[in-house]
Formats: sequence, C-alpha cells, structure tokens
Amino acid sequence: MKYPLLAPLFLAVATVAFADEGMWLFSQPPRQLLRERYQFEPTDAWLGHLQKSCVRFNSGGSGSFVSQDGLLISNHHVGADALQKLSSKGTNYLRDGFYARSQADEVKCLDLELNVLQSIEDVTVRVNEAVPRSASAAEAFAARRKVIAEIEKESLTRTGLRSDVVTLWQGGAYHLYRFKRYTDVRLVFAPEQQIAFYGGDPDNFEFPRFDLDICLFRAYENGQPARVSDFLHFSAAGAREGDLVLVSGHPARTSRLLTLAELEDLRDQVIPARLNSLRRVEVMLGNWSERSEENARRARKSLLTTQNSRKAYIGRLEGLLDPSLVAAKTRSEAEFKSKLAARPECADALAAYARIADATKTMAAQASRFALLEGGEGFSSDTFRIARTLLRAGDERPKPNGERLREFSDSGKASLELGLFSEKPIYTDLEILTLADSLTFLAGQLGASSALVQNVLAGKPPRERAAELINGSKVRDVAFRKKLYEGGASAVAAAGDPMIELAAAVDAEARALRKVSETQTEIRQQAHAAIARARNSLLGTTGYPDATFTLRLSYGSVKGYEEDGKPVPAVTTYAGLYERAGGMKNVAPFDLPASWEKNKPRVNLSTPFNFVSTCDIIGGSSGSPVVNRAGEFVGIIFDGNLQSLPWDEVYSDKQGRATAVHSAAILEALNNVYDARNLAHELLNQGSLN
Amino acid sequence: MKYPLLAPLFLAVATVAFADEGMWLFSQPPRQLLRERYQFEPTDAWLGHLQKSCVRFNSGGSGSFVSQDGLLISNHHVGADALQKLSSKGTNYLRDGFYARSQADEVKCLDLELNVLQSIEDVTVRVNEAVPRSASAAEAFAARRKVIAEIEKESLTRTGLRSDVVTLWQGGAYHLYRFKRYTDVRLVFAPEQQIAFYGGDPDNFEFPRFDLDICLFRAYENGQPARVSDFLHFSAAGAREGDLVLVSGHPARTSRLLTLAELEDLRDQVIPARLNSLRRVEVMLGNWSERSEENARRARKSLLTTQNSRKAYIGRLEGLLDPSLVAAKTRSEAEFKSKLAARPECADALAAYARIADATKTMAAQASRFALLEGGEGFSSDTFRIARTLLRAGDERPKPNGERLREFSDSGKASLELGLFSEKPIYTDLEILTLADSLTFLAGQLGASSALVQNVLAGKPPRERAAELINGSKVRDVAFRKKLYEGGASAVAAAGDPMIELAAAVDAEARALRKVSETQTEIRQQAHAAIARARNSLLGTTGYPDATFTLRLSYGSVKGYEEDGKPVPAVTTYAGLYERAGGMKNVAPFDLPASWEKNKPRVNLSTPFNFVSTCDIIGGSSGSPVVNRAGEFVGIIFDGNLQSLPWDEVYSDKQGRATAVHSAAILEALNNVYDARNLAHELLNQGSLN
Repeated sequence: MKYPLLAPLFLAVATVAFADEGMWLFSQPPRQLLRERYQFEPTDAWLGHLQKSCVRFNSGGSGSFVSQDGLLISNHHVGADALQKLSSKGTNYLRDGFYARSQADEVKCLDLELNVLQSIEDVTVRVNEAVPRSASAAEAFAARRKVIAEIEKESLTRTGLRSDVVTLWQGGAYHLYRFKRYTDVRLVFAPEQQIAFYGGDPDNFEFPRFDLDICLFRAYENGQPARVSDFLHFSAAGAREGDLVLVSGHPARTSRLLTLAELEDLRDQVIPARLNSLRRVEVMLGNWSERSEENARRARKSLLTTQNSRKAYIGRLEGLLDPSLVAAKTRSEAEFKSKLAARPECADALAAYARIADATKTMAAQASRFALLEGGEGFSSDTFRIARTLLRAGDERPKPNGERLREFSDSGKASLELGLFSEKPIYTDLEILTLADSLTFLAGQLGASSALVQNVLAGKPPRERAAELINGSKVRDVAFRKKLYEGGASAVAAAGDPMIELAAAVDAEARALRKVSETQTEIRQQAHAAIARARNSLLGTTGYPDATFTLRLSYGSVKGYEEDGKPVPAVTTYAGLYERAGGMKNVAPFDLPASWEKNKPRVNLSTPFNFVSTCDIIGGSSGSPVVNRAGEFVGIIFDGNLQSLPWDEVYSDKQGRATAVHSAAILEALNNVYDARNLAHELLNQGSLN
Repeated sequence: MKYPLLAPLFLAVATVAFADEGMWLFSQPPRQLLRERYQFEPTDAWLGHLQKSCVRFNSGGSGSFVSQDGLLISNHHVGADALQKLSSKGTNYLRDGFYARSQADEVKCLDLELNVLQSIEDVTVRVNEAVPRSASAAEAFAARRKVIAEIEKESLTRTGLRSDVVTLWQGGAYHLYRFKRYTDVRLVFAPEQQIAFYGGDPDNFEFPRFDLDICLFRAYENGQPARVSDFLHFSAAGAREGDLVLVSGHPARTSRLLTLAELEDLRDQVIPARLNSLRRVEVMLGNWSERSEENARRARKSLLTTQNSRKAYIGRLEGLLDPSLVAAKTRSEAEFKSKLAARPECADALAAYARIADATKTMAAQASRFALLEGGEGFSSDTFRIARTLLRAGDERPKPNGERLREFSDSGKASLELGLFSEKPIYTDLEILTLADSLTFLAGQLGASSALVQNVLAGKPPRERAAELINGSKVRDVAFRKKLYEGGASAVAAAGDPMIELAAAVDAEARALRKVSETQTEIRQQAHAAIARARNSLLGTTGYPDATFTLRLSYGSVKGYEEDGKPVPAVTTYAGLYERAGGMKNVAPFDLPASWEKNKPRVNLSTPFNFVSTCDIIGGSSGSPVVNRAGEFVGIIFDGNLQSLPWDEVYSDKQGRATAVHSAAILEALNNVYDARNLAHELLNQGSLN
C-alpha cells in the first residue's frame, strides 16, 4: 500500500527522460513530452485547476477535493493515522470503518493538517547570494538557514499562507511554495480495513489487486464545510485500458540523482540498517498485538506502517543489488565525468563527486549514533518526542528566527503547535514497550558499558527504566505541555520531568551530531548544485528534480504487463475479488468483510476494481488522484507493484506499474455495499445533499 | 517452549551452589545438597536407572523411556523436527497431530538418532598429556584434536558404542561419554500443535500455562520394538505442590562460568547480532507463510524455532542488561582475582583473564564473517549445507582420522551419514526464499561491491542467483549425494554442481576463519582450565560445569512464586485451560482444537495440567522427565517461565521456574480426549497391548 516512483536520470543524463518517466514540477510541466507521446496539450488553466484541487496530508500522503463542499478523497492507509487517533477501546474505526450519514456525524480529526499549493516562486538567486563565497560549510549552512527563514517569514506575513522554501535538485535550486492550510478536517467515510487492505501484507505491492483503499474527509472553514472552487469532477466511467492518465500528488522522496557513492551507501549501510530496525519493531508490535484485541488495536497503525516500509525497503534493496543498475550508473557517471574532465571550466563540478563521496563517508561514520540520538531511535516513544520538543522549544524560541533549528522557525510555528498540542491518545503500555525495546537496541549499538548508555539507563534494566520514565513523565497531559511551552526554558527546567531530563542529558551530543549532518549536507548540496550547473551548461535544462514531498505531475497510460511469461491485465474486477477470496478459502488476510459477503448479490461483478498504469509515483503519492485528459477523477493511486519498488532509484515501465482504485469501484461500493448513496451523489453531482 | 537454566557460580564461587541451583554431572551428583536440603539419598542404582532411562534427541532435546517396549516420551516441540519431516501436502502431522492405533501404524522417522548414556570416563590426563607444554595454541589445538579422535575411535572399536569426548568446565576437564544409539525410531502419538503449544508465541515462556507439549515415539531394534530394561514407571498421581522433584536431561549450553569480558561480548555483540538475524528470518518466514496454507506448512517448524529462539534471546539479553547481574559478576571476579594476586603460584590463573579477554576480542572481530561463511548464514539453505558437507567430505576423509575437521572423525561417521543421506523433504521454493534472503544479508554485511560478494553473486541479483543455484544443484537427490560421497574429491569436482562450486569458492576463507576460531577457543579453554585449577586448589572442587548437551541431574521443589505482588500457583488445571480459551474469545492462538471442544464434557476439569518447579534447566532440557523420590515419572519439562530466561547466565529461584506437563494431564488427554487408551494402558502397566 504504497507507491514508489521516478526515473533513472543517471541512465539518461544526456537525454530527456524516457518512457513515461518523471515527477514533474507544476512550474515546469512536461509539455513537450505530453505533446509528442500523447498529443496532449494541457492549458495553464487545466494545470492550475488540477494543482489547486490537490491536497497534501502532512501526516504523509496525498488527496484531492472532489466536491465544491470540501469533500476530499484519499487512501484508507493515508487516513489511517487519523482513524487510529479517533479510535478507542469501543470504536475501532481503523479496523471496522466509519460512515457519517449526515454532516453532523462527521468527526473532527486530531492534529491533521492539509495543504493546498497556491503558488511557486524561484528564490534560488536570493538564497545563494546570501551565502558569502568565502564561507566555510558550517557558515554557509547558517547563512542559508537564515535567509530561508527570512523568506518564509516574509511570505507568511505578507500572504498569510504557509510558506516553505523547498530545496530541489539536491541543492541546485530553491523554490518558495505557498500553501493554503486546512486544520479543521472531518472524517466522512472509511471502509473496513479488511477490504481497504485486502490481502494484507502478502498482497501488498502485488498485482492483480482488489483493494478499496479509500477514505473520505471534508475540509471545514469557520465551522462550515469549505467552499472550494477547485475540485475534481468524478468520472463514473473511469479509466480504461490504453487511456492517457495523469497523476498529481506529493511523492515523498526519490534518489535518482544521487551519485554512485551515495547509492552504494544507501545499499550497503542505510537500507540494511533501516531494515534491521523495521524488522525489530515489526516483531515486537506483532507479538504484542497477538496478546489481546486491545493491544492489536493500539498498535495497529504503527504495525501496518512498519510492515509496509519493510516490504518497500526490501524491494528497493533488491533493485540496488541488481548489478545492471549499478553498472548503468557507473557507466553514465563515468561518461559524464569524462565530459567534465574535457572542459577546464567544469573542474569544480568534476571535483564535486569526491566532495560528495567524502561527505557521505563522514555521515555514514556517525549514522548509527545520529539515528539513535538525534533521530530518536534510541528513545522511541511519543513521550520522548514531546519531551524533546518542549526542551528544545525552550532553548530555540528566544533565538532570532534565522538561527533556530528549522522546525522552530516562525513560519512553521502553527504546524508545530498543532502537532505538539494534539489530544491524540498515547498508551502508557505501548510507550513502555517501544521505549524498553529501543533502550535495549541503544545498549546493543553503543555497548551497555558505555558512559552514554549507563547514563541513560541510570543503573536499571531497560524495561524498568522505560517504565520509570514513561510513568514518571507528565508530558502526556496537554495542559502541562502548554504550560511548559509557554513558560519557556526556565519552566521546562523547573518541571523536573524525568523524560525531559533524559532528553536534556543527550541533547548536547544529539545537537552536535545534527550539526555535523547539516554541515555535510551543505557540502553535498553545494557539490550537487555544481554538478547540476555543469549539466545545464553542457546538456541544457531538462528533466525533473528528485521528489521532495511537494506537488508533482506524472503521466502514463493504463497498461498491463507480462510476468513469468504470462500477461497481467491492467484492470481487475469485482468478480476477481470474490474469486480470490474463494481461492484462498476466505482465510485471513484474504477473508471478506461481512458487508461484502452480504451484498455480493447486489453488486455488479463486472465493475472494474483496481488498475495499473505507467505513471511515475513513489511513497507519498498514495491518495493522488488519477485524472484523464478532461481532468476528471478516474481513479486514486494507492500502491505500486513489486517491480516498481526500485523506482526510488530507477524508473522502468518494463514491468513496474502504479496501482490505483478505479473510480467506478468507489461508486459501486458506496451505492451497493455501504448504502452511502448521499456520498455517491455528492461525488457525481458536485454538491452535497445538505 | 524452551527452558533456560543454571546458576551463578560466579556469585558463589567460594561456596557451594545455593538454592536449588545446578545441572549436575551424573558422575558427580549433588549427594550432599540433596541430603541437606531434602533429606534424600539416591542410591547408585537409583541414579544408574534414571541415567539409562533418559534419551537424547540429536535433533535437539531430551526424552525418556516409559515402557519396557521402547515407548518413549518427549515434547511435541522436540518431536516437531520429525513431525515436519514426515508431513506432506496432504498430511500435516505437525499441525494436526498423529496417532498410531496399532504398532503397525507407527511411522519411522527420518534421520532421527537417539542416544542413551551408558558410561562416563574421565580422560583429562590423557588429553592434556598429549599436548606438549611448548606447543603454540594452534599446535595445541591440533594435538588435542588428534588425541580426542584417537580416544573416541578406540572406544567405538572396543565397545561399539557412540563415543564422544566432552569438554567440561570450559576446558578444565575432558570426559568420554559412551552412548547406545537408536536410529529406528517411530512416531506413535502427537496431539494437535494448537494444544501442544497452546497460546502460541504470546504465551510462550509464560505461566500459568496449559500446554500438552508431548510426543510419543517408540525405539525399534532389528525391526522390533526395543526391549529396554531401564524405563520410568509412570505415576498417575504425579507431582504435587511442595514435592521434591528431579530432572534428568540434556541442557544444551549455559554461560555461567564465563568471565566478565565474555559476558560483555555476549551482551553487546553476540546476542544483538543473533537477534537481528532471528528477526529477519522470522519476518521472512512469517510473511511467506501468510501467502498460502502450503507455504505455512513447509515453513512451520523453522518459523516456530525462530520465534522461540527470538523470545529466549530477548529474555537472556534482558538478564544481561540488568546492572545488578553485571555488578555481581564484576565484584565476584574482582574478589577472586585479588585472591589469586595474593599467591605467586596463581599468577598464571590471574593472567588467564587477560588471555580470555584478548581471545574474545579476536573472535569478536571476525564474528560476522565467521557466521556468514563458516556458520553458513550467508547461504542459508539445506542445499548449501549438503553441498558443503559433500565438498568437505571429499577433502577430509582421505586424511588421518586425528587431522580431520571434527565432524568427519571416524567415531562420528555413522551419525554424519545418517543426516547426510536423509530422505527428508526439501522444498525448492523455500530454499530459494531463504537463500535469496541470506545472500542479500551477506551483501549488506560485507558490501555489495566487495570481491567476495561479487564472486558469490556472479553478476546477478540475489534472488536470481539463489534460483539459479537451487534449481541448478542436484544435491537434493540422495542417490547423487551418495555417489559423490563415495566417489570422493575427484567425483565431487567432476560433478560441476553449482552449489558445490559456490561452497568451494568460499571454502578457503571459511576454513581460515574456523582455524582462527579454533585456535582462540584453545586459548580460552586453556585459560579457563588454569582458572579452574586455581579455584580447585583454593576452594576445593565443588559445583557443576556449564551445560554441554550431555546428561545432567537437577533437583528442586514444586513451588509457585509471586509476580506483581500476586501469587502464581504452582499447578494449573484443565478447568483453567477452558477458562483461558473463553477469556480470549477462542481467537488464535488461544483457540482450542475441535477434539478439546468436543470432549470437554468427558474430561475431569480438576485434573492438573502444567506445573512449575525450581529445578535448574535450560534449552535442551525440553522433554526431560521430572521424577519423584521413587524415580517415577511425574511430569515432563517443556519450558521455563520468562523469569528463568536469564538462567543461561545466572540461576535464581526468586521467580524463575521450570515448567512441566503434569503426568496426570497426559493420562487424562490420552484417555478422554484422544481415545488412546492403549497408550495410557502401556504407560501405566509397563507393557504394550500387543
């Protein structure tokens, strides 16, 4: 239930992207490729409308408005964070689904922020000019942070819009993105997870597929449904094999422009370490969940996210371990470097490769410690995350805006506070479980006799220490949080909260590790910028930057593929779902919800269910609308197939596909499985029933 | 479903073992302690009878004869290896159970070897005298290996009994153990795994407990049930609270005599690395099992073993991370070292600690590579294990007996061939799965660009390479194996088998790693021997050596404990089982087999089910008989509670307990759940019905 995506610029560094590759900036759409490959010429109005119909879920994922009354659609697994937070012992919305039969029943989500992109402005020159040429990397980082904070704050003050400076092309460009924020978002409809994630972990990232991976929300303003002028018209017919389709959403991150040294680091260090941690957490949460239904409910969202990441990383790693990928990268990098070597004015770009390799090595050397202390992996718990935010807020907020840690800048204040003061449930038993496990991991990584571990454990076994810290901390009380946040550093220090004290005990080293990371990132980014400049001057500007969780446009066609010599059709149907369940004897995770068993006679079995296309997507694209030439909603991305998992590094449409729920499947389910005819009506008629 | 165990000799180095601690040698039983603590004085005949009633499962675990016709009892999870190997797509004995209503229905197990200890002889002097004082560690290792091979071969030739020289006291003593071998062992009865392992992973190592963790076999000789003169009489009344009970079985390994440096290595390196691997395999097998019922059947035994080890290692690690354990160890080691420092004649023993620390460090430095290449973790598959055995057999067998790798010595030949020529099923899909996963792990550990990994992967991605190796190898054909084994090195080389070629490609380095390991182990063992000698001269011989998968005697009493301020009674009942299932809504793994649902009205609900005692056990003790003063079978060990998991390093009976199935539970189930009255009759009347 995710979606990787993007194309191997390094395979094609001297050419435009090939096939249907590309996660294009809305400010630089692939007009020529769309014209040449699909004879499609979107107007500015067409693009602007699509852009403003799309929403970003700051909890991770994408979505789109689908009615003038602020109704919006995303995936069930994107909505899962909200569903989990709204659930309690009696009401397991994440597992059992939810349906507000009237607007009055719509439930407000906790700490959910949606962003709609309003404008893009290139601020590269201003950002770079603020950095003195003679500056050291550390100084350059500080100067850059300062000017970015200034730009963001100016923009926020002037426009009232959320303003983020986005780093593109690994440091080659800086764009100011302005977003309209929605923070009153209400849950409207979710199916049972059993059908939203039909086939569970075994079928995740597989195809053929039968997932109704949708969730409906409504944005509100001033206590009323938001009236939106840009929303997608819903197509009852939906996508058909061979159609040109376009995807507009927020792919989180790709690694296609990385150098060979960076890819090797990913392959040999970063991903194996990440997988170790994911498996540790998966086993821990899985075992704990088996112990009781309530445990399972509490850990559900975390467990699913962990399993999903594990499967995605394994797929990425498989791609990186394919020698043909590395060989192609090696060849193209060598070719480009030989071009650079032939031109004296490109000497700096050529040398940049070594700078990147050195910086990568420096960061790799501290990667484990960084993840544990600054990444918080050694103290995994909401209690620690909140405690550290309070500690750092006390230290950072008195500083000038441009000198603070980025997450405390003025422009991000509203979003930070939304998260910090969330009333989401935090479960003491689960907190102790995850903290004890991560303290054990910390001890194993750094050695139980090390001064740091001894200090952290304070003479107690990890489980006992975890219980003491979690039970002793008051930061799970929102009023207490507000008091400390408003009271500042002195209030924080005076509170004597044991978890804040733990955060304080490791903060000096965590900050030092972060400083190294920031400085090395600055070096890498400037080296990438030098390479990008040389590439532009040698080959002309072309292509698209790596994904950065900002709005991108992809395109492709609805198209099956071949696997083990057999054709895999592009579209599945309702009939296929019932066949799959029967073939697997209705045993979990292939069992059907009661609603789908009961209403089998009512549904049209020939209704399309899921479909694949060659559109270039990746994690974060989940929930992206799939639109046709007319800009109509014909489906919603929720996954990529196994062969798409290496798209993080290299796009290929030989077998790789993006997976979507068909718009007709959504209507059929709302009408004939869930009796949610008012929603189907609102989708088709662009007006709510109220 | 395992059982850790053993007491902190380091806490009590100057005294006898305290409480009910100890896994005592049958050649040095704890007569004084039994007399003082329990007023019990077992005769030599009592001990000899118990010794010869006990069997060792070479697949791992213990058991005992319970009728004169060779009927023997062990745990379901000890029998699981045999049950898995005897199952096929249609017959899932491991999950569904098995019952031979007549002797003709008893099914012969594949490659199962049982050993019954006949005699113990101290050969320490002969072993040590064969090693020249001036020898280097490598030379000493070679000389010791040679004399051990000689002793074993002489004994085998003279007695016809399996003859193993066992290293005790970490190198302080060498004893020759002679065993009667049974290799025609037939499956008689197994319950459904659902009740044998009731509560699954969540309840594993927990108490109260309700597991009918038993499996019945029959030993055969010359095609007829073996007539055994030593077997345990079955007690229908069984164990009662407060009773003295004794356990006789084969605890696999404890670490109670390790130095602080060795324990720290376990805590910070060995166990965390092992846990990483276990979790990786657990997630892989778990996901694969979810995909189909047949996958689940094929992977079942491996998955259960992996989960069990993972839970046990986590418990051990928790113990090692308890600062009080390390503090006690540090203190006792310092005290003993100060005693040594005061005596010039103990200088070598004092210096031995540093030699142990150095050797530990040397081994730790190569531990990951050793596990991958010599341990075979990089090539996890039966196909690789067989291929390497064939390769090495070709190289080793022509050498003089005393110069071979230990597993190829003349005395071990019969057992080696039993395993090598086993007709057990090997599943190609599962082989490719595990091999691909471990090749990926290998690449992550050593770096995908390293020469070794490049050589191993031969320019292909891990999954493709794994499929090529597994599909291309013929070693899964037993006739092919026999041909190569008999044909020797030239036949092996001529076969051109791709998996044998892979084994050959890494064999030089694997052997080099093993040589370092053997040499360092020799250094450690001699250092431990020096410490043991000093201890004996300072404190007198006392206590028991660490467990080595040889027969040991433990004792204790049936006794509950306190947890979270509440008493945990020593004995559970049938009524408790049905209450537990109801409380957990019969949801897996807390659901009951149909046989137990159906026969609930027939069973006596007040029948005892499981019970705990203070007997000192550990992994390998599974299946050990629990006997009373009269030497009658009153239960069977199958587990230890969570608090016993640190017994690997330190015994404590504050809360730690060994868990057993009550003998009455076995009779009640055979009679009233399974209608296996002939077996109940044979157990009680010491004669088969035939």
